[in-house]
Amino acid sequence: MTQTQPAGPAAGIQQPGQRSRTFTWSDPAVNAASVGRRGGLETLRSMIAGELPPPPVMHLIDMTRMTADEGRVTVELVVQEFHYNPLGSVHGGVLSTLLDTAAGCSVHSTLPAGVGYTSLDLNVKFLRPATVASGTLRCEGTVLQRGRRTALAEARVLDGADRLIAHATSSCLIFDLDAPAT
Amino acid sequence: MTQTQPAGPAAGIQQPGQRSRTFTWSDPAVNAASVGRRGGLETLRSMIAGELPPPPVMHLIDMTRMTADEGRVTVELVVQEFHYNPLGSVHGGVLSTLLDTAAGCSVHSTLPAGVGYTSLDLNVKFLRPATVASGTLRCEGTVLQRGRRTALAEARVLDGADRLIAHATSSCLIFDLDAPAT
Amino acid sequence: MTQTQPAGPAAGIQQPGQRSRTFTWSDPAVNAASVGRRGGLETLRSMIAGELPPPPVMHLIDMTRMTADEGRVTVELVVQEFHYNPLGSVHGGVLSTLLDTAAGCSVHSTLPAGVGYTSLDLNVKFLRPATVASGTLRCEGTVLQRGRRTALAEARVLDGADRLIAHATSSCLIFDLDAPAT
Amino acid sequence: MTQTQPAGPAAGIQQPGQRSRTFTWSDPAVNAASVGRRGGLETLRSMIAGELPPPPVMHLIDMTRMTADEGRVTVELVVQEFHYNPLGSVHGGVLSTLLDTAAGCSVHSTLPAGVGYTSLDLNVKFLRPATVASGTLRCEGTVLQRGRRTALAEARVLDGADRLIAHATSSCLIFDLDAPAT
Repeated sequence: MTQTQPAGPAAGIQQPGQRSRTFTWSDPAVNAASVGRRGGLETLRSMIAGELPPPPVMHLIDMTRMTADEGRVTVELVVQEFHYNPLGSVHGGVLSTLLDTAAGCSVHSTLPAGVGYTSLDLNVKFLRPATVASGTLRCEGTVLQRGRRTALAEARVLDGADRLIAHATSSCLIFDLDAPAT
Repeated sequence: MTQTQPAGPAAGIQQPGQRSRTFTWSDPAVNAASVGRRGGLETLRSMIAGELPPPPVMHLIDMTRMTADEGRVTVELVVQEFHYNPLGSVHGGVLSTLLDTAAGCSVHSTLPAGVGYTSLDLNVKFLRPATVASGTLRCEGTVLQRGRRTALAEARVLDGADRLIAHATSSCLIFDLDAPAT
Repeated sequence: MTQTQPAGPAAGIQQPGQRSRTFTWSDPAVNAASVGRRGGLETLRSMIAGELPPPPVMHLIDMTRMTADEGRVTVELVVQEFHYNPLGSVHGGVLSTLLDTAAGCSVHSTLPAGVGYTSLDLNVKFLRPATVASGTLRCEGTVLQRGRRTALAEARVLDGADRLIAHATSSCLIFDLDAPAT
Repeated sequence: MTQTQPAGPAAGIQQPGQRSRTFTWSDPAVNAASVGRRGGLETLRSMIAGELPPPPVMHLIDMTRMTADEGRVTVELVVQEFHYNPLGSVHGGVLSTLLDTAAGCSVHSTLPAGVGYTSLDLNVKFLRPATVASGTLRCEGTVLQRGRRTALAEARVLDGADRLIAHATSSCLIFDLDAPAT
């Protein structure tokens, strides 16, 4: 899905030390049109099975290997250089993307057909830097509380040695899909 | 910097509706090696002037047009389809990346040479969805308090009509660069 | 409203160094029954004018001098020894009470009759310790965004020298009062 | 420790429906002077055993029955009317006080003698209202991560039926006590 390569002629004339990556994604309208027509868990599993296209951001960040159960979603990331901040480690925004994905999808997995959600917030704690030496990052999202109008989820990023890299909580607003969003 | 294109033969055989993007970045070790040797504002301005390579994540997310003053940093994003979540709007993680960048860099801009920082947290509120129709997103980071060992910054994402899309606060730990990080 | 005194015979037999405080409050059912029947700003101003009893927690913490305008509420606290944590400064929970009050009431001040709210969260940053030497603490709550179903408020605690002691954001859920709460 | 009573003559002339409470506390300087001279767990257990006076805020809020193990502290609250907000339920600031106490003390319990801490933040989620009908509230604080310079703790408030009332995370800064605080 991602091809990172030393920049060659096909990528145009480049300076020494430059790298290049090409990624592809599908028309997001296909996915958006189906949201809410099926239950959340069924939707997530269709995406995992390749029947529905993953959202573009999955390809952008190169998140992989999602798993989904009711109230629990995991996703993985192999750290690559293009995730880096100026300090030479994974940018906090990339970790936040993993956490927001796992937290939001864990809430989504509890919703019946006809019910939508939107994330109200994301409270991230950065605990330890991650680099390409960290091994595969695994992000686990879990629903802590599921109310009628809101839900609270927690997510954790662990490195290949199961050390806690980042932690987040996220509140989601839940609403009938015939009602307009906030 | 980014070339989004209808996928052609050069990108391999693709399904209808697929899109492709290629982006490039520089060896992040160049940038990381210089962090802390100069004051923060000078470092940021060297990056803006193109004397130091921007970090890879800037190219990944396609953030542009950074400006830096002491205690205040802005960055922009032209929303593109590859930023989308399954709901057909900019993923919360992409907004978090803008907020983390502007907040962290605003703290960085207050640091003298020899002093480093790391973000301890990022508390994001998502207020309104952003799409390709939102115009250019502008993210402004501002230092609210600068202590000896910690700093608090705030950041806001505004759309092309100056509506508040997302808000964040972030605490940073400040330390002498000869001392090891957390 | 508060009488802090060296403990005398009326307070029972006490150890040296002990202090005592007596405070009073009104039946909170009177206040709760009126919430939502009038607009939020009118309700807050009735409370300030003494026509409605302040909630018990105002007396408990000894908050005073509330002011209310649409989208902006302030409240004050004269730091007293009974607010202290084991470290000899105002407990974070007392600062959180000021922030939650000012943030929540600033949202309340924007609500028409028949509309209620509940705080979903409170994200507090503690920036500087406060003690009895800090002068009167002033907490200002401001609405940053007012949507149809949620609102975002910010609050700041300043000491007598206008230094920032603590900062918070709070999201509130807004709902018609004939609909049940979360 | 707390005497809530129908207001009688001794409390002065009062309006109908008024209630009164008197509480006492000890000179907080005694407690503050001992902080850091012993390890955190030993200090907390001395407080629980009555050898060190509890901080005034414990008496103010009427928190009781603290327990402390390494990395885990619990505290209880019997909800009383004086904890109420204008809506007739426990004020968010009172819940925040429980959460800040349990989270901060759980970090304190991991510190050796000569090492201090201060709370940098408190991120509270309010999930369900609590009233005098909620039974005894139990707040559990747990250390999620203990670094060299920071620690992350989580705390939960449960009602008498073990339902989640509120959740918080808190980051603490850890420092040698001979070094000045932030």
